[in-house]
Amino acid sequence: MPIAISASFDFQLDSPTDIILQFEAAAIPEQTILSCNTNVTAEDCARVPAHDAIGERVLFEAEGRVDVSYEALVQVNRMVPDLSALDQLPPHDLPGETLDYLLDSRYCPADRFQPFVEDEFGGTSGGQRVLAIHDWIGRHFSYEPGSSTSTTTALDSFVERRGICRDYAHVLITLARASTIPARYVSCFAPGVNPPDFHAVAEVFLADQQTPGGGAWYIVDATGMADPRETVKIGVGRDAADVSFLTSFGQAHFGGKQVTVTRQAG
Amino acid sequence: MPIAISASFDFQLDSPTDIILQFEAAAIPEQTILSCNTNVTAEDCARVPAHDAIGERVLFEAEGRVDVSYEALVQVNRMVPDLSALDQLPPHDLPGETLDYLLDSRYCPADRFQPFVEDEFGGTSGGQRVLAIHDWIGRHFSYEPGSSTSTTTALDSFVERRGICRDYAHVLITLARASTIPARYVSCFAPGVNPPDFHAVAEVFLADQQTPGGGAWYIVDATGMADPRETVKIGVGRDAADVSFLTSFGQAHFGGKQVTVTRQAG
Amino acid sequence: MPIAISASFDFQLDSPTDIILQFEAAAIPEQTILSCNTNVTAEDCARVPAHDAIGERVLFEAEGRVDVSYEALVQVNRMVPDLSALDQLPPHDLPGETLDYLLDSRYCPADRFQPFVEDEFGGTSGGQRVLAIHDWIGRHFSYEPGSSTSTTTALDSFVERRGICRDYAHVLITLARASTIPARYVSCFAPGVNPPDFHAVAEVFLADQQTPGGGAWYIVDATGMADPRETVKIGVGRDAADVSFLTSFGQAHFGGKQVTVTRQAG
Amino acid sequence: MPIAISASFDFQLDSPTDIILQFEAAAIPEQTILSCNTNVTAEDCARVPAHDAIGERVLFEAEGRVDVSYEALVQVNRMVPDLSALDQLPPHDLPGETLDYLLDSRYCPADRFQPFVEDEFGGTSGGQRVLAIHDWIGRHFSYEPGSSTSTTTALDSFVERRGICRDYAHVLITLARASTIPARYVSCFAPGVNPPDFHAVAEVFLADQQTPGGGAWYIVDATGMADPRETVKIGVGRDAADVSFLTSFGQAHFGGKQVTVTRQAG
Repeated sequence: MPIAISASFDFQLDSPTDIILQFEAAAIPEQTILSCNTNVTAEDCARVPAHDAIGERVLFEAEGRVDVSYEALVQVNRMVPDLSALDQLPPHDLPGETLDYLLDSRYCPADRFQPFVEDEFGGTSGGQRVLAIHDWIGRHFSYEPGSSTSTTTALDSFVERRGICRDYAHVLITLARASTIPARYVSCFAPGVNPPDFHAVAEVFLADQQTPGGGAWYIVDATGMADPRETVKIGVGRDAADVSFLTSFGQAHFGGKQVTVTRQAG
Repeated sequence: MPIAISASFDFQLDSPTDIILQFEAAAIPEQTILSCNTNVTAEDCARVPAHDAIGERVLFEAEGRVDVSYEALVQVNRMVPDLSALDQLPPHDLPGETLDYLLDSRYCPADRFQPFVEDEFGGTSGGQRVLAIHDWIGRHFSYEPGSSTSTTTALDSFVERRGICRDYAHVLITLARASTIPARYVSCFAPGVNPPDFHAVAEVFLADQQTPGGGAWYIVDATGMADPRETVKIGVGRDAADVSFLTSFGQAHFGGKQVTVTRQAG
Repeated sequence: MPIAISASFDFQLDSPTDIILQFEAAAIPEQTILSCNTNVTAEDCARVPAHDAIGERVLFEAEGRVDVSYEALVQVNRMVPDLSALDQLPPHDLPGETLDYLLDSRYCPADRFQPFVEDEFGGTSGGQRVLAIHDWIGRHFSYEPGSSTSTTTALDSFVERRGICRDYAHVLITLARASTIPARYVSCFAPGVNPPDFHAVAEVFLADQQTPGGGAWYIVDATGMADPRETVKIGVGRDAADVSFLTSFGQAHFGGKQVTVTRQAG
Repeated sequence: MPIAISASFDFQLDSPTDIILQFEAAAIPEQTILSCNTNVTAEDCARVPAHDAIGERVLFEAEGRVDVSYEALVQVNRMVPDLSALDQLPPHDLPGETLDYLLDSRYCPADRFQPFVEDEFGGTSGGQRVLAIHDWIGRHFSYEPGSSTSTTTALDSFVERRGICRDYAHVLITLARASTIPARYVSCFAPGVNPPDFHAVAEVFLADQQTPGGGAWYIVDATGMADPRETVKIGVGRDAADVSFLTSFGQAHFGGKQVTVTRQAG
């Protein structure tokens, strides 16, 4: 069943300011863009492939008010295996390009959590470790819009035990990396997110049962709100710093934002 | 004049532990490996390209004592232009793969420094901005081995105004990114580093005078100890988290380390 | 000229929660409470002397909605000398009870700033050092409501160079302590604060010209909005953690707040 | 059985520097100083009562090398009740001077831990809550000299689950305050500390069974190394920032330190 996406937001720039946007469904094999329409009220937009060549970044310099709107219909064709059956790959068997996802990033200071994951999740590994982390977050965290800010790290959220999708994803990524499982941040659209907004989930790299010796990325939503079979990826990165829908090199006064994501009846 | 490098270190692992090493001169066009010899007392070492395909990571699982030694002779053929003549490229003219180097990373929370760089370095841009940052660090920081730890960020160093090469590089990278100039971390060998050790410098991405519309990475050593014409790159990353010479997924008891880097008389 | 104060705020408690309030003009020699009227819609309020016996804390347990209102007319009789003429006292000549105000507190990690204050303000001491700090903040900071949160420390504000009265006071206190000058946080009412609200200033302990060997506390407003001769103290502490107008041991949903402070024509 | 204490340390000051020391057994009712001998190689030492008038601070300005040595014989007469039988007092019944010990301090950002303590220790209160916290730390933390620094907060230790006595005390204090139980930091001497050194424990304020409506401070050692009946208090404070044995207003190069604490046979 296709996913219908509508998103719009606007912001005000007091002086000429460089902007990076990343807000559109990525054109990747696992999801087909049936139709889309983007409007950005800025001149001379450049487009470049985003992190890991998933999705695109839109770049421009602008002043004054900028309006962004986006509509799309996307068919998701993602295989969603039972994570509990998947092993993790030891670092020396990992593809080189996944190794960065074991390391510390801005919001995910993973190495400090090695004693915790051993203490709390010792005895599990691979997909079972990931599910144990997922369940632990579900039992101990509360979803509280407004409880975190743009500087909140996984360490802060781990202590305060609350946050929004961004914070949930950061904690899961951090604990997975501390478990020597590559993990990355995925910004996305998904039906069922409440309140409706851009959403964020994690992806972990585990063994691929179909390909001996191989591995693949698997979506995990620590908030439990989105179904991986209906999740439309915008982009990926080491954490939220890499895939913000709006990055501004100078002050931007944010206006409004509206996101709706629905299942399109056939 | 070739650079002769000798490095050795050892560590102890109480239980089987995954290890990532990155400690060898990178084979890249700007530096020629005339000869090299690596010894790692671990079995089944895998090798994968490192960040940005510069240098290699050595991966293995080991237990007990591990000894690493490395000797190499390297000819550096790097062009070192006058930075003050180089412009910066606006984000929308940057190659897509450099954009991540404008964003926040583990040790370089750049976006918080935008007001500071405007206040302190306003009126400069491009290479002149980079040199102004370099000089400001030189005037205000003191080089104090032991004054920082593995969790020290550029924010900490900015406040405390002291540190080692790693911290100097992090501060320069952070202030460059806050100035909308892509900047990355370079681990390296260089003669003149005192006390002799692995060294760290920054690289900034500025316009390339030879290639209209193009850009290139240029080395800047905030400590002033190393000459870019004699600096042998090991690897690059968003900050020190990406190019540690030793990353351990579990506890490692570090033993000794010896690094000597000398100019080889012809 | 008396100062007329009117303040009210309300909050909602989902379950029985312990509350500490501190919101009334302190009855201290330097300010005379001509009249006052306090209403708190909670039962069994206890009152205890607050930090340094300046002002009172109101304590109670409540559930549901709590409304607080306060009106007062206060005559301020504070001597305001020229700070630039005042020396600082070396620690071994300070009264014992001021020593805590040289030490690190929650929002004021002063010891990390010793290199900075020497570098930036070296050559000044005492009241001249305080004024140099005051002027430096005035030149480099911008007053931006909404730019900080309840976890923002002086270290954060020093980096970001912006904040509100609370943050301005924290930075001044931190840099004064790093200069070996005792400094404390003062919550207060003052005309001229814009937007009107509870206000915060710093106090520094310097030599008292009238009393050989003695010292006294002197108000400094890093924001420049309030005149010490018209500032009505509510309470003091090591930083904002000690004199919040509302401390809740459990979740409180804050409602509205209104504060007006005016000069009362004679 | 008296406790015999011997402590010595030295440090070097490159330029005239203000120093605060606090290293001697406090003369308080619960411990009798049978004999003592203090030597500080500095001139013009001032002595002032320390935090909460427990123990003394020694203040001076010095340059060059300073040697400090101290010997004492102390009889501890402390009542040590069963904590599990003691209730906590609600804030509105607490003595005013204990309220500061409910609030955040430099190393103990307690308010961020309210959700955690409810989640982990809900259903307990008073002394039973304190013992539950004590046991939780004992189960989850490992004592690792060298794993923390002077900037490590309870938040850091909570995440990393390791540290030394200082860090153990900070975590217990933080979780007690988040449970609305006043808690303070106690620097002390105690036999059984391994390796022998200055030690740190926590004190919590709970109901006093002997005095209806009253309360008292009770020692809790999160490390389990020291017996409250043999613990000789040096001083108290909101956290380690308040009772460092050496506070230096400028750079001090620390030399050696030797502490021995033994039970003196009768």
